[in-house]
Amino acid sequence: MVQFVGTQNMIDLVGSIGLNSLFRKLVAYIEQDFVRWNEFDKTPRIASHSDNGVIELMPTSDHDLYGFKYVNGHPQNPVHGLQTVTAFGLLADVATGYPEFISEMTIATALRTAATSAMAAKYLARKDAKVMALIGMGAQAEFQALAFKAILDIAELRVFDIDPAAYPKFLRNMAQSGVRITRVQSAEEAVVGADIITTVTADKKRATILSDNMIGAGVHINAVGGDCPGKTELHRDILLRSDIFVEFPDQTRIEGEIQQLDADHPVTELWQVITGEKSGRVSPRQITLFDSVGFAVEDFSALRFVRDMVQGTRFYRDIDLIAEPADPRDLFGLLAKTSSAAARPAPALTS
Amino acid sequence: MVQFVGTQNMIDLVGSIGLNSLFRKLVAYIEQDFVRWNEFDKTPRIASHSDNGVIELMPTSDHDLYGFKYVNGHPQNPVHGLQTVTAFGLLADVATGYPEFISEMTIATALRTAATSAMAAKYLARKDAKVMALIGMGAQAEFQALAFKAILDIAELRVFDIDPAAYPKFLRNMAQSGVRITRVQSAEEAVVGADIITTVTADKKRATILSDNMIGAGVHINAVGGDCPGKTELHRDILLRSDIFVEFPDQTRIEGEIQQLDADHPVTELWQVITGEKSGRVSPRQITLFDSVGFAVEDFSALRFVRDMVQGTRFYRDIDLIAEPADPRDLFGLLAKTSSAAARPAPALTS
Repeated sequence: MVQFVGTQNMIDLVGSIGLNSLFRKLVAYIEQDFVRWNEFDKTPRIASHSDNGVIELMPTSDHDLYGFKYVNGHPQNPVHGLQTVTAFGLLADVATGYPEFISEMTIATALRTAATSAMAAKYLARKDAKVMALIGMGAQAEFQALAFKAILDIAELRVFDIDPAAYPKFLRNMAQSGVRITRVQSAEEAVVGADIITTVTADKKRATILSDNMIGAGVHINAVGGDCPGKTELHRDILLRSDIFVEFPDQTRIEGEIQQLDADHPVTELWQVITGEKSGRVSPRQITLFDSVGFAVEDFSALRFVRDMVQGTRFYRDIDLIAEPADPRDLFGLLAKTSSAAARPAPALTS
Repeated sequence: MVQFVGTQNMIDLVGSIGLNSLFRKLVAYIEQDFVRWNEFDKTPRIASHSDNGVIELMPTSDHDLYGFKYVNGHPQNPVHGLQTVTAFGLLADVATGYPEFISEMTIATALRTAATSAMAAKYLARKDAKVMALIGMGAQAEFQALAFKAILDIAELRVFDIDPAAYPKFLRNMAQSGVRITRVQSAEEAVVGADIITTVTADKKRATILSDNMIGAGVHINAVGGDCPGKTELHRDILLRSDIFVEFPDQTRIEGEIQQLDADHPVTELWQVITGEKSGRVSPRQITLFDSVGFAVEDFSALRFVRDMVQGTRFYRDIDLIAEPADPRDLFGLLAKTSSAAARPAPALTS
């Protein structure tokens, strides 16, 4: 049997842990895996492109456990009432190849993306950072806000979205957060006084959410929304003034803000900051940039986290995804085990 | 909601259709997709190798529907009572990226492998073929035997396995088949008088199940067991005397019997025989060889088949694999929907 965590299971799990505690635990799982970065098989995602979007498979393995995520990105989906991104993931035992755990990851991806952003900021933002500009109040916004509250104790958010309808939704979801929320009328206004700037907009195009004159000394930029070829949020000049930190350079150079730069522009791998091999922030006036695109190892961490959290709880069920004949050479023998339900003729199949 | 076909669902579905009818319908699905071969995105499988085996993802798309299969191959698994191969698969809507259907494919892979073999033999074996040698009585054996019964009306099987314990299992499973079964003591004896020779052995090494002197004029060879790098069943000299038919040359040259030949050795793509672009068997004395390795398009066909067959039946259930917020920008709002079960503290999570 394979353990399955569905959407309602995930909702209930998150509810039972609480988001503050969840983000702290999840960041610990991601840090554990970033510290042992070199143990993982890493490959750029396998993408199937179409006119409307992309479907991707993101596999990785630490040689004990194999994981992959299925994820789509379809920017026009919201026009039809559907989400831009949906996902699910799986863990399997490398020794046997048997799948062991499968989970919804639409919510889990939002959680791990926000947790990774907050983890990066823990190493890259100024220690006294208390005010965050949040530009874009779409599906990922509350997750980012609450991860930064949990990990960096952010006290004030300065929020902006080009769609005025996004604000009431955001405010409702943040009502219990204990974070002061200041609504502003432009991205320019949002960044005033901000120690951290999070951009998480959704347009699939080269946009300039942040221009060079908006970025003062000492700021940490958490650039989340520039995450596929042809989709960026920051003016190139900002990149040239920043120290840039990335997950997996091979992927980020294709998908991230740094697709605007030369292929050999220096970047620092985040895992090396976490192990201490490389420096994160070294001065209060430095501009740091986390060019987030999302990598398979983070999904692997999130799957490990969810799997560990649900053991001994009612937040999963077993599904018979994998046939398990008593004699492995007698797979055919299973077909003799027709249930009584099937022994009755199935009307739709008799014609 | 995503439709889910578990192992028991699949067993019940097969029972309700009956294998004879199932193989005929399934071959029709595979033929439909082979005829429109050029509509598919095709890529070699994405493999994650380890000491014990391999885990593979096999994606394809016809631009309306995206499919992939997860499959492992671990030759030592049976020593531990586990199967060498397990699998599951998924279909998604290319337009939205949303998964729609997920199914066990351990049984479905056995069915589609056998159906593809029988489909190939329909075009490549002599029309009067009635006797098949079946060398290897492992997990795939009965599926091959019954597919050839359903599609070519094979009347006699001459069977051999190096493990004597395989025979009682095979005989029990074939008791109701209406096929005459002759047990012989060697592969040499099995091929005597056979019109079709099916090799389906499991060793992960270069083996010589068939040597050149065993192969007479007019035979069709259905070589199923040579299906990964370093694993072959036929002596190279047989290949040089045969007209060779393959699924997807890029993959077969790595995984199939033809890994023993030069990279430019001529082969015919099976889909071209089915469309009539190329000839299959042209003379009663010709030796034809289907070098089967299994390709993603066959899994796509099998998934379409199972999906279509279960509609309106009780052989699937809905699972909440994908979160579906009413407002796509309000994914976070779902987290307010904690069920009453979760509202009670979960003991395992309160510590």
